[in-house]
Amino acid sequence: MSKVLVINGPNLNLLGTREPHIYGATTLADVENGLVAQGKALGLEVSCFQSNHEGAIVERIHQARGEGVAFVLINPGAYTHTSVAIRDALAGVAIPFVELHISNVHKREPFRHHSYLSDLAEAVMAGFGTPGYGLALQYIATRLR
Amino acid sequence: MSKVLVINGPNLNLLGTREPHIYGATTLADVENGLVAQGKALGLEVSCFQSNHEGAIVERIHQARGEGVAFVLINPGAYTHTSVAIRDALAGVAIPFVELHISNVHKREPFRHHSYLSDLAEAVMAGFGTPGYGLALQYIATRLR
Amino acid sequence: MSKVLVINGPNLNLLGTREPHIYGATTLADVENGLVAQGKALGLEVSCFQSNHEGAIVERIHQARGEGVAFVLINPGAYTHTSVAIRDALAGVAIPFVELHISNVHKREPFRHHSYLSDLAEAVMAGFGTPGYGLALQYIATRLR
Amino acid sequence: MSKVLVINGPNLNLLGTREPHIYGATTLADVENGLVAQGKALGLEVSCFQSNHEGAIVERIHQARGEGVAFVLINPGAYTHTSVAIRDALAGVAIPFVELHISNVHKREPFRHHSYLSDLAEAVMAGFGTPGYGLALQYIATRLR
Amino acid sequence: MSKVLVINGPNLNLLGTREPHIYGATTLADVENGLVAQGKALGLEVSCFQSNHEGAIVERIHQARGEGVAFVLINPGAYTHTSVAIRDALAGVAIPFVELHISNVHKREPFRHHSYLSDLAEAVMAGFGTPGYGLALQYIATRLR
Amino acid sequence: MSKVLVINGPNLNLLGTREPHIYGATTLADVENGLVAQGKALGLEVSCFQSNHEGAIVERIHQARGEGVAFVLINPGAYTHTSVAIRDALAGVAIPFVELHISNVHKREPFRHHSYLSDLAEAVMAGFGTPGYGLALQYIATRLR
Amino acid sequence: MSKVLVINGPNLNLLGTREPHIYGATTLADVENGLVAQGKALGLEVSCFQSNHEGAIVERIHQARGEGVAFVLINPGAYTHTSVAIRDALAGVAIPFVELHISNVHKREPFRHHSYLSDLAEAVMAGFGTPGYGLALQYIATRLR
Amino acid sequence: MSKVLVINGPNLNLLGTREPHIYGATTLADVENGLVAQGKALGLEVSCFQSNHEGAIVERIHQARGEGVAFVLINPGAYTHTSVAIRDALAGVAIPFVELHISNVHKREPFRHHSYLSDLAEAVMAGFGTPGYGLALQYIATRLR
Amino acid sequence: MSKVLVINGPNLNLLGTREPHIYGATTLADVENGLVAQGKALGLEVSCFQSNHEGAIVERIHQARGEGVAFVLINPGAYTHTSVAIRDALAGVAIPFVELHISNVHKREPFRHHSYLSDLAEAVMAGFGTPGYGLALQYIATRLR
Amino acid sequence: MSKVLVINGPNLNLLGTREPHIYGATTLADVENGLVAQGKALGLEVSCFQSNHEGAIVERIHQARGEGVAFVLINPGAYTHTSVAIRDALAGVAIPFVELHISNVHKREPFRHHSYLSDLAEAVMAGFGTPGYGLALQYIATRLR
Amino acid sequence: MSKVLVINGPNLNLLGTREPHIYGATTLADVENGLVAQGKALGLEVSCFQSNHEGAIVERIHQARGEGVAFVLINPGAYTHTSVAIRDALAGVAIPFVELHISNVHKREPFRHHSYLSDLAEAVMAGFGTPGYGLALQYIATRLR
Amino acid sequence: MSKVLVINGPNLNLLGTREPHIYGATTLADVENGLVAQGKALGLEVSCFQSNHEGAIVERIHQARGEGVAFVLINPGAYTHTSVAIRDALAGVAIPFVELHISNVHKREPFRHHSYLSDLAEAVMAGFGTPGYGLALQYIATRLR
Repeated sequence: MSKVLVINGPNLNLLGTREPHIYGATTLADVENGLVAQGKALGLEVSCFQSNHEGAIVERIHQARGEGVAFVLINPGAYTHTSVAIRDALAGVAIPFVELHISNVHKREPFRHHSYLSDLAEAVMAGFGTPGYGLALQYIATRLR
Repeated sequence: MSKVLVINGPNLNLLGTREPHIYGATTLADVENGLVAQGKALGLEVSCFQSNHEGAIVERIHQARGEGVAFVLINPGAYTHTSVAIRDALAGVAIPFVELHISNVHKREPFRHHSYLSDLAEAVMAGFGTPGYGLALQYIATRLR
Repeated sequence: MSKVLVINGPNLNLLGTREPHIYGATTLADVENGLVAQGKALGLEVSCFQSNHEGAIVERIHQARGEGVAFVLINPGAYTHTSVAIRDALAGVAIPFVELHISNVHKREPFRHHSYLSDLAEAVMAGFGTPGYGLALQYIATRLR
Repeated sequence: MSKVLVINGPNLNLLGTREPHIYGATTLADVENGLVAQGKALGLEVSCFQSNHEGAIVERIHQARGEGVAFVLINPGAYTHTSVAIRDALAGVAIPFVELHISNVHKREPFRHHSYLSDLAEAVMAGFGTPGYGLALQYIATRLR
Repeated sequence: MSKVLVINGPNLNLLGTREPHIYGATTLADVENGLVAQGKALGLEVSCFQSNHEGAIVERIHQARGEGVAFVLINPGAYTHTSVAIRDALAGVAIPFVELHISNVHKREPFRHHSYLSDLAEAVMAGFGTPGYGLALQYIATRLR
Repeated sequence: MSKVLVINGPNLNLLGTREPHIYGATTLADVENGLVAQGKALGLEVSCFQSNHEGAIVERIHQARGEGVAFVLINPGAYTHTSVAIRDALAGVAIPFVELHISNVHKREPFRHHSYLSDLAEAVMAGFGTPGYGLALQYIATRLR
Repeated sequence: MSKVLVINGPNLNLLGTREPHIYGATTLADVENGLVAQGKALGLEVSCFQSNHEGAIVERIHQARGEGVAFVLINPGAYTHTSVAIRDALAGVAIPFVELHISNVHKREPFRHHSYLSDLAEAVMAGFGTPGYGLALQYIATRLR
Repeated sequence: MSKVLVINGPNLNLLGTREPHIYGATTLADVENGLVAQGKALGLEVSCFQSNHEGAIVERIHQARGEGVAFVLINPGAYTHTSVAIRDALAGVAIPFVELHISNVHKREPFRHHSYLSDLAEAVMAGFGTPGYGLALQYIATRLR
Repeated sequence: MSKVLVINGPNLNLLGTREPHIYGATTLADVENGLVAQGKALGLEVSCFQSNHEGAIVERIHQARGEGVAFVLINPGAYTHTSVAIRDALAGVAIPFVELHISNVHKREPFRHHSYLSDLAEAVMAGFGTPGYGLALQYIATRLR
Repeated sequence: MSKVLVINGPNLNLLGTREPHIYGATTLADVENGLVAQGKALGLEVSCFQSNHEGAIVERIHQARGEGVAFVLINPGAYTHTSVAIRDALAGVAIPFVELHISNVHKREPFRHHSYLSDLAEAVMAGFGTPGYGLALQYIATRLR
Repeated sequence: MSKVLVINGPNLNLLGTREPHIYGATTLADVENGLVAQGKALGLEVSCFQSNHEGAIVERIHQARGEGVAFVLINPGAYTHTSVAIRDALAGVAIPFVELHISNVHKREPFRHHSYLSDLAEAVMAGFGTPGYGLALQYIATRLR
Repeated sequence: MSKVLVINGPNLNLLGTREPHIYGATTLADVENGLVAQGKALGLEVSCFQSNHEGAIVERIHQARGEGVAFVLINPGAYTHTSVAIRDALAGVAIPFVELHISNVHKREPFRHHSYLSDLAEAVMAGFGTPGYGLALQYIATRLR
């Protein structure tokens, strides 16, 4: 079974409670449980990680290489726009990844229009809400076949 | 049955033949046939349109309002970056839409990083190849339920 | 009788139906009929043209020279901001023109603050709603006396 | 009878004498007398004010609120490009206004392409010469009916 | 005999009549006839196309691939500065091309200093007047030997 | 008793009446009377000045030096963003000053994010409403002890 | 008793020792003790937090919501200029806050002139030294009455 | 005898007292008296004007035309960088002028590197201290011979 | 014996394994052991620290002051481009430092061309590979003699 | 016989040896001999000059005026992008010139996209390789007839 | 007798012949002879130097230090805008200097608005024609008394 | 023995005498003699060159190829920021090089933060004073082994 690592960045632990008009009412646990189940159905071993610490995300990515993770699905949250360290970690382990944003960042503040990850990502999606995670996983399943 | 209009912009008639290292080998007919079939399975009436003419795309969007189209899936191709007219047409008919790019535009020339549509779109995806159309349609199906 | 050509650009066929909070409820036919009538009263032969196609507008302008059109009144719509071709057509035929926008473009997105036509136009007006066409025609009548 | 206040900014006292190839030969007194007369015909009480002092224009605008002025027609001259104070005065009294420039500012120096007033104005016109004042008053009359 | 396609963009149908101080008095027909004749002398089959429609130019380029055109000589006119679609069409068919401007664009408005085609072109020339077409064809002949 | 000069710039005479959702309902007289009283309690001689004229503010600052003013509290209003003359006056008399804005300028138009005074000021505050004046005076009292 | 959370960002643990010509000689403990005491006098329960870790500040803000904190007083230090994550945390919990800088950031390096928090803050102050904390708390007390 | 008008802008009444390390110890009266005397020796009628009010400077320039002033020597002070109105006044009366700055503005803040007058001036000088006025007058004398 | 602290930032724990075409095959342990040994030979007590956490690096720098560290050699990795907090920490402890990059950052993405540390550093080197650390230590030894 | 001066700038003495994938294998002597021969055939007296010294090129241009040179063909090499002195020399002698680049500068580093000469040149060509010199000479011959 | 060195940069050897509408008809020899004579009258030993070579100007400045030159009067011509080397030479020898331009550079191309020397110069003048040299020398005489 | 060429650019002949607070008191001869001696010890034949002439540096680099120079150590001085010609020369001969600056250019004027050489250099160092040359040579020795 191919391994997929799902990473959620800062403030995503608030999902379902924070700014629901932007992010909806599904919680992060809902999302993660759903992905693990969907993964099983697709023949993927999905593990999930959330952190508000840039350094912890960097280190989780390093660890993924040792674990043989085949694909990363990352919602980098605010670190999308400010973290070269996460970019370097992803480039360093050389695992392909999809970058996902729950809201459509293009409707929001200009500083959210730049991502330090997008040009390294295999694909990028924004605005599909929490259902976007499932669509991305479906894509990853196809890619890992 | 809800109606979905799929619009492909300039040069996408070359799909499967042009720059296959970027766009893959699936042709536009393959994509369109697949979407119609998938639409049927999802209870959606999918119609498809491709044009290399900015004005023709504008007029196809106008026509969609009369037809009662509920959702648009658009790959605006090069007009993404240069057409305020298509933006205005979509705003004028007020039909929600997903913006899709086959390749990851963030890996390409800087002028491809700006879209005249993204801040009006409900969601945006790039880099998922031709399978991205299917994922988007799946999303639209959920939205129209 | 001097000839005046009124040109309306993309999406203006939707006038009276599209985004009425911005553009009001008068239709394009109302506007055009009004201008023809007002023209007669002012001793002007007014003809009207609308197109969503940049190339068609370019060619209508070319044709105006052959017809002896003395003044153009143009609402270039979205092509205001993106069309060098229409600019070149107007410069090429060397017919004086007034540039008109129904809404006040200065209240809207930043990309609407730049026009490829304004520095060639004799005069520019924005935000006077559909009554602006009549005011512009009145001005043109004075100029052609 | 609705009250309309016409404000002319710095150097417009030179009208008819200064740079006639840009501004024409009509004097400011000609313009003002014409507007008062036209106003009477339209059922409007027009009063006129010119000053070269930014602060004096600010205070004239303040005073307009007390007088019950219903509409302002302002040619802010050079202060168009440099006065936030006049912008704030107009916003403070919340009287709708038309912004007018005699010459087509878009043909002139780049710093004349930015206005601190345009996004607050109801409408903006430039390049109609001194006849533009009359057209604007005509518009205002319609608006105040 | 190698095939060469000569494409002229918007407003070039006015050649010889429009702004003669910039473009000279030779007409487009003169240029095209001259190129066909010169092509014969050089052993090249030259065909010519002019359009004011961006989409039509895109489609003429697509068609060139099917025809086995070996080289394109394009004067994109105003679309030089605004058309990503033509750029994508040329990249899509992967036919080498020379970009030509009759006037020296570097002497003109700043927006004419940027071209969406130049970094894809094999070579670029500007300011050689209508004789430039002949020089370019001569170059192409050398390249196709 | 140390002397403190309170300066309010253009449009602040409207305080309490203009845009109350931004500035609140307290009038300038309320603010000034409050500061004089608070000053007495703190052992400070507070005098107040408001003007809509840039030149008058410049001259009031000049006069302050002759009066032995020890500290200035200035809300420069719109001149914050446009007046080098007031900056030079403050630098010329070399009296320390606090810059105050009633509203949070960072929430407003981008041109309000730049101040010609802030890098000369001892301290800057924005968004504390009219109570901010009292806090600033309290600070000044501490500084003058 | 309303709860107020005081947050100090990176390097503020050095307060009183680091660059005293900029920050003065009062230590962070002095500041915090003073605020707790002042809070009691004002009927506020003040708790204090300092961290050099962006993620820890994010999490302290999350926790504040659970605790029923009514107002935050934050000196984000260097994270002012680089942390979207802290911005998102503050927006996520929707607790009003004052942003405070001990030094006048406008006198310092240009990158200190931009804050990721200021447009979300209720009010902002800079340059009042450590006494600024007390002034801000006084303001907060008024707001929570 | 040709007439020369010497204009000094805001804060120059402080000359000799303000920031002597930048401007020196000569007062404005010293400068003006010196210029009148030097003018007599050179056969020029020199009159002098200083104001802190932008509008007053505009009006003094207007008046100069009526007086038959042949040349203006202007030190616009802070209005150099912010006044389009003074620029327009000088262009309006069409009197040649020299722009003078006592200090070398190129050594100072970046906003002092732009002048709204320099491209209209016949000549510009900066950094020659108060003796610069005399040099400029000498130049003007040559020009008016 | 003078104390030297060597700090390596995020992802440098991957050294020797990550992107070897950029960073070479030497591991971080190799580098650190080499520096300690070289330090002994040079009469320096070298201690080494690596962290992926911005906050941890900030705190290690704080601690260095207490330890009497005389010089810092820092390879800030990705934090070079994003961390004002590390800049402030180094400025706060006022220990001189050399900034080192293993690869030549000038050959890489534009965002790597800006460093928040370089203008505070005593010296900067980039592109010397892992041998660069030894050269820098040699320099530091000379400086501490 | 009209005189034509061919100038080659810095590093063009390396032609045929330096970066052959960009510049080809023809040497400068080959080019110059070819042009002299072609010139004879066209009735032109061609002289050639190469220098790596900006000042020497400036002086060669000065000398051309004395010699009665009718046209200059210049490949300014690196000085294209950095030399105002060569621009001024060409403007000073007022001899018409063609600017030529062997490679297509638009495919190369951004700083090569700006030329200090192009807006003064009669025509510009880039990317035609060494055969471009001959095409340019052919053009010049036509111009001098 | 104090020594003054007058340096003229590239193309100034053409003075009196090149673009006389900009620079007038006086030759460089006229200017230099005039300055030597004026210098004698003022008690100054004036020597003059002109070169088209950046390096030669650098070396002439170096030599000036050995000669005990007390002041430099430099018209750097085109090198004003492109030479950091001349800036460094002037800073290196630490001789005060006046920067002079014959024409008013502010009326000309934007790249002439920046000088690499102005912020190091004691004073700057532009637009006084060749008489400007004499005025500058007069100033220098005063400074050296 | 491998050959190393050391190039010093403009004004470095002043080393040890010019601005000693920036560059120290060691002369260029000291540096060069030291490098030759150090080279011998390292088994390298070091030759040194200094010039103030851009063209001369270009030609010295050309000559290096003929001599079989294996590595260049260049301190380009002011030409770092202005010379594309030296960049092209180094690229043309394709000899690896280290770029060295004695002072830390990042602490100085913004125009010194850009180098035309850094992205071609193998490594770059700045701020190590004259000892930096020796460190660089040591690096080169390792590279040439």
